[in-house]
This record gives sequence, structure tokens and C-alpha cells, in this order.
Amino acid sequence: MPFVTIRMIEGRTREQKRGMVKDVTEAIVKNLGCPTQAVSIDIIEYTQENLAQAGKLFCDGR
Amino acid sequence: MPFVTIRMIEGRTREQKRGMVKDVTEAIVKNLGCPTQAVSIDIIEYTQENLAQAGKLFCDGR
Amino acid sequence: MPFVTIRMIEGRTREQKRGMVKDVTEAIVKNLGCPTQAVSIDIIEYTQENLAQAGKLFCDGR
Amino acid sequence: MPFVTIRMIEGRTREQKRGMVKDVTEAIVKNLGCPTQAVSIDIIEYTQENLAQAGKLFCDGR
Amino acid sequence: MPFVTIRMIEGRTREQKRGMVKDVTEAIVKNLGCPTQAVSIDIIEYTQENLAQAGKLFCDGR
Amino acid sequence: MPFVTIRMIEGRTREQKRGMVKDVTEAIVKNLGCPTQAVSIDIIEYTQENLAQAGKLFCDGR
Repeated sequence: MPFVTIRMIEGRTREQKRGMVKDVTEAIVKNLGCPTQAVSIDIIEYTQENLAQAGKLFCDGR
Repeated sequence: MPFVTIRMIEGRTREQKRGMVKDVTEAIVKNLGCPTQAVSIDIIEYTQENLAQAGKLFCDGR
Repeated sequence: MPFVTIRMIEGRTREQKRGMVKDVTEAIVKNLGCPTQAVSIDIIEYTQENLAQAGKLFCDGR
Repeated sequence: MPFVTIRMIEGRTREQKRGMVKDVTEAIVKNLGCPTQAVSIDIIEYTQENLAQAGKLFCDGR
Repeated sequence: MPFVTIRMIEGRTREQKRGMVKDVTEAIVKNLGCPTQAVSIDIIEYTQENLAQAGKLFCDGR
Repeated sequence: MPFVTIRMIEGRTREQKRGMVKDVTEAIVKNLGCPTQAVSIDIIEYTQENLAQAGKLFCDGR
């Protein structure tokens, strides 16, 4: 613990994910004082057909 | 907010998803009185091998 | 299936939740064609200290 | 209810999943005393690029 | 990994939870061949007002 | 989007949460290039009776 789940639209590069999990982990360790190895992160990626805001699918424009 | 996650078996059409997110959003706005644009929905789809009920995978029949 | 999780700020009345789960269930049944009894909904409520947008807790204003 | 979500790295066989959902369901029924058919399980699988521990993606080694 | 989330109605005893996490962990280790210490479980408990099936809150009867 | 869920043991102060959501949001914006206001975070806190590792509840020691 803690466990972090990041849900986002698909299409980010491995480089972006690599930097993101490194920096998010540091942000949590800094503020909670937990060991770095205690922080787990999972990323769930969505197609534009599986996300909606204001009642409209992302694939239909925003 | 609110955030809605809908988990379902894969195979629904875009048309079904389009209608579902529209109607679910309206149902929430009507009852909670929040703005339409505050409602986010994400859909997680599962293969029949990744869902089970009563101890049995969906791909093995029900 | 399908399973619906609704995450929202605490403070809604039972009457609001009652109407919301009824209408959300109807919205899903109408669009997916699944039986009413197949739709499960769980509601996760958050205090204003456990939600944030734009890097700011809800309890600190928006 | 209860609903069980199992999040794991991709690559397990159908045979492993079949045994896992059977045994996890039995473990829950035994301890909670609920009917077998009340237990639903969903499995979310992740690529090595979408999981991280200690600030490092699984695809970058551990 | 793997991470297991169990969502259920509130009211189970600590003894029930203790037995459940022990047995669920064994069920996963047996089938996936992962180390026991790799299995994390979190339990989310719901009031009867925050769960619904077939469009009806649990607190309103089933 | 993106939506971040942080699951952790209860007991952190508001000050810790305030710093955490600020820094996690910055970490995501820096790496993904999304607007700050697009980042939502929710925190789920667990009692020691509702978390387990290696088949043992946190309340029973580690």
C-alpha cells in the first residue's frame, strides 16, 4: 500500500508512462512517508468508444 | 463527479454504448441535480474468459 | 452483469439514490437488452477531504 | 454480492483462471455463508507496460 | 500482484474476514503459482443504501 | 481524464492528503501534457480490518 490506479485514454507512449509512474510514486512517498517499494501503480487504458463525458462518447467528439 | 464505471461483457455495438451513456447520464442528472458535464462514464469490457459467476468462467457456459 | 459503480460526493438522500438506481438500471436495460435483475449497482461516497480536482481537495474549495 | 475483482499481469492460461475462480468462490462461500451463485468474479489483466512497483514499470525489469 | 478487491455488504465479523482472506489467498497461490506475500486483498463494505439490484436499493428489500 | 484512485490505510492527515493530491496532479500533468483541471483524484481509505497481505489482515499484524 498505497495502490494507485490511473485511468486514461489510450495512446500514451511507454516513455510517458515511465516518467509518470516514477514521478507519481515520488509524490506519494514524499507526502505519506511510506517506502518507495510499497507503492504499486496500475494503468487502465480506454478506447475513445469506452469513455464518455456529458453523455457523449469521446469517439463522437467533445 | 459523479464518475460512473460500467463493467460488462464485450460485444456491444458503438450504437448501444452511445445510447447507454446518454441515458445513464440523464438518469443521474435528473436524480442528483448535477450539471450534465459533470458526469463521466468509463466502460470496462471483459472477454468471456475473464468473468465468472458461481465459480464458473462465462466461456465454460452458464 | 453489467455491474455499475457510481462514485460521488457524500450527502445525497436515500430518495435521490432510490431514484438514481431505478433510472440508471432502466437506461442500461433499454440500451443493452439485458434482464433488469442482471444489473447491479454499487455507490461509493466520498468525503470532501477524499476528492480532488486540479490538484486541490474539495474541502479546500473549488 | 460479493463481487470480486482480480487484477493481475497478463499471461495466465484459461486452465489457471478456471481453477482460480472455482477455488476463490469456494473460499468466499465457506467463510461468508453466501450462496455460490451470488459470487461474481471479474479479472483485469495488465500488460507489463501498465503495471509499476517502486516507481518502475514491470517491462523495465524489477 | 495479484490484487484482489472484494466488495460486499457490511456486517461480516473480523473472524469471517480473517478466514476469507486466508482462504482466498491460498486459492490464488495454488492456481497462479505466485508467492503468498505477493497477494494483496482489500475489502470494500457497503451499507444497504449503497447497493442495488434490479433497480432497487438493498435497504428497500429484495 | 485522467482519473486517479489512491487506496491506502486510514489515518493520514488532511495536510498529507493536500500535499499528495497537489504533487500527484503535477506529476501527471508534467508527463502526460494534459491540463491540470483534467486530473481528478479520489482517495479510498481502509481500516486495518479491511486490508490483507499474504493472507493476513493488517489488524492481525504483519
